[in-house]
Amino acid sequence: MTRNDIFEQIQQKRSYLCVGLDTDINRIPKHLLDREDPVFEFNKQIIDATKDLCVSYKPNLAFYEAMGPAGWESLAKTLEYIPREHFTIADAKRGDIGNTSGLYARAFFDTLDFDAVTVAPYMGEDSVKPFLEFPGKWVILLALTSNKGSGDFQLTIQENGQPLYEKVMRRAMEWGSPEQLMFVVGATHPQKFEEIRRIAPEHFLLVPGVGAQGGDLEGLSRYGKNDLVGLLVNSSRGIIYAGDGPDFAAQARAAAEKVQQQMAAVLG
Amino acid sequence: MTRNDIFEQIQQKRSYLCVGLDTDINRIPKHLLDREDPVFEFNKQIIDATKDLCVSYKPNLAFYEAMGPAGWESLAKTLEYIPREHFTIADAKRGDIGNTSGLYARAFFDTLDFDAVTVAPYMGEDSVKPFLEFPGKWVILLALTSNKGSGDFQLTIQENGQPLYEKVMRRAMEWGSPEQLMFVVGATHPQKFEEIRRIAPEHFLLVPGVGAQGGDLEGLSRYGKNDLVGLLVNSSRGIIYAGDGPDFAAQARAAAEKVQQQMAAVLG
Repeated sequence: MTRNDIFEQIQQKRSYLCVGLDTDINRIPKHLLDREDPVFEFNKQIIDATKDLCVSYKPNLAFYEAMGPAGWESLAKTLEYIPREHFTIADAKRGDIGNTSGLYARAFFDTLDFDAVTVAPYMGEDSVKPFLEFPGKWVILLALTSNKGSGDFQLTIQENGQPLYEKVMRRAMEWGSPEQLMFVVGATHPQKFEEIRRIAPEHFLLVPGVGAQGGDLEGLSRYGKNDLVGLLVNSSRGIIYAGDGPDFAAQARAAAEKVQQQMAAVLG
Repeated sequence: MTRNDIFEQIQQKRSYLCVGLDTDINRIPKHLLDREDPVFEFNKQIIDATKDLCVSYKPNLAFYEAMGPAGWESLAKTLEYIPREHFTIADAKRGDIGNTSGLYARAFFDTLDFDAVTVAPYMGEDSVKPFLEFPGKWVILLALTSNKGSGDFQLTIQENGQPLYEKVMRRAMEWGSPEQLMFVVGATHPQKFEEIRRIAPEHFLLVPGVGAQGGDLEGLSRYGKNDLVGLLVNSSRGIIYAGDGPDFAAQARAAAEKVQQQMAAVLG
């Protein structure tokens, strides 16, 4: 998928929403638990209810791995079920020495067929590059994350006065083009988006932290938007757990619609 | 498992070897491919051939994930097969926002029953702490890794003149005790072990990079050893792929024995 493909979908749907499929078997409505694969059934209904309101889905691997092999099956079925037009992100935050990163890339791009995978930068160039070797596939590199701990190392000031996340972004931009590299920038740092756009004007940003984590959609969009919109704003719990009864999918749709309408207003 | 349990095993076996089960279905001997679960069969024979020579096994998750759900099954069976005295490490390099790290911890400590998991520090305190909440379980935090890219960010000098990996270690030592926290320090940085022992005199270090990656066992052991030995030196490819014929397990044993004898000499 190209940047333009994503941009066209954003224009068509008036939405740059990514729905995070952080599906926890302990949190899904009770009436689904007697289904053969409750997690897949939940995801299926969420996808049916939200697919015209969002441009991307992002399963978080932790939720599937916590269930062992069965979770891996639910994940594969979910990915298969997502319509092809949607940009699919394996939120895996992987990163290892070269030959091992190559295997993770194979896991997410070949064994499964995700469009993108999130990657952690701590191990440097040879841990990231193997993910960039798959044509048409994307690396979404952690730059400045949405959690409280993002301040611990990502905001560490280097001897040249710049924060570490800036070094991560500048180095990574030498490894991959804006057609294969995005950055994670948390919605909980709205004041940083202007600076981040100076560093990376062309790249798409994946923005978690709206909703349950409290980020401000309008503020970050004002500073974060570029010519191709350049934003995929993720909401997970705020949408998929909007309701917990038999009408959970309708509740999820209502929550997604609310975000989509805010986005339509931003897009003007 | 406690530090003392590991130390006693090291003394008894005259070995601080960790065997990395980086089992790639494309590299295992051809005669195993008609078995029901070739990866498990390979691991089983490697474990039988090496278990008296090593104190720890470390499956690298990437190799299992690359095979999809079947890989997850092979991993679970492998873990089950490893004798209880061995320290088992899920080399997963995970790390995510708090609630998500909690799920990864559940995946490796509950769903599976590993003693330890490797964790990436980039996302900071709340990404690491959930792994520290399981009594008797261990976090092995990436500090200074063995790969070339370790220089990109881990050796970044902060404004106080210290490299980033030092900040990572010092912060993490506030989060967990030497009874629950180890650090990854690559054998490819032998000149750093003296400095690292000044920062963390008591912690065990997991040391990859001996063998295929070229690290020097004797040099790093001289500077890295502490009162409880404090080292788990990993070799993966150098041992498990020592042979590729029907006698692969005997070849793996011979390779492991060579390392074990070097270790016995270091232990004196």
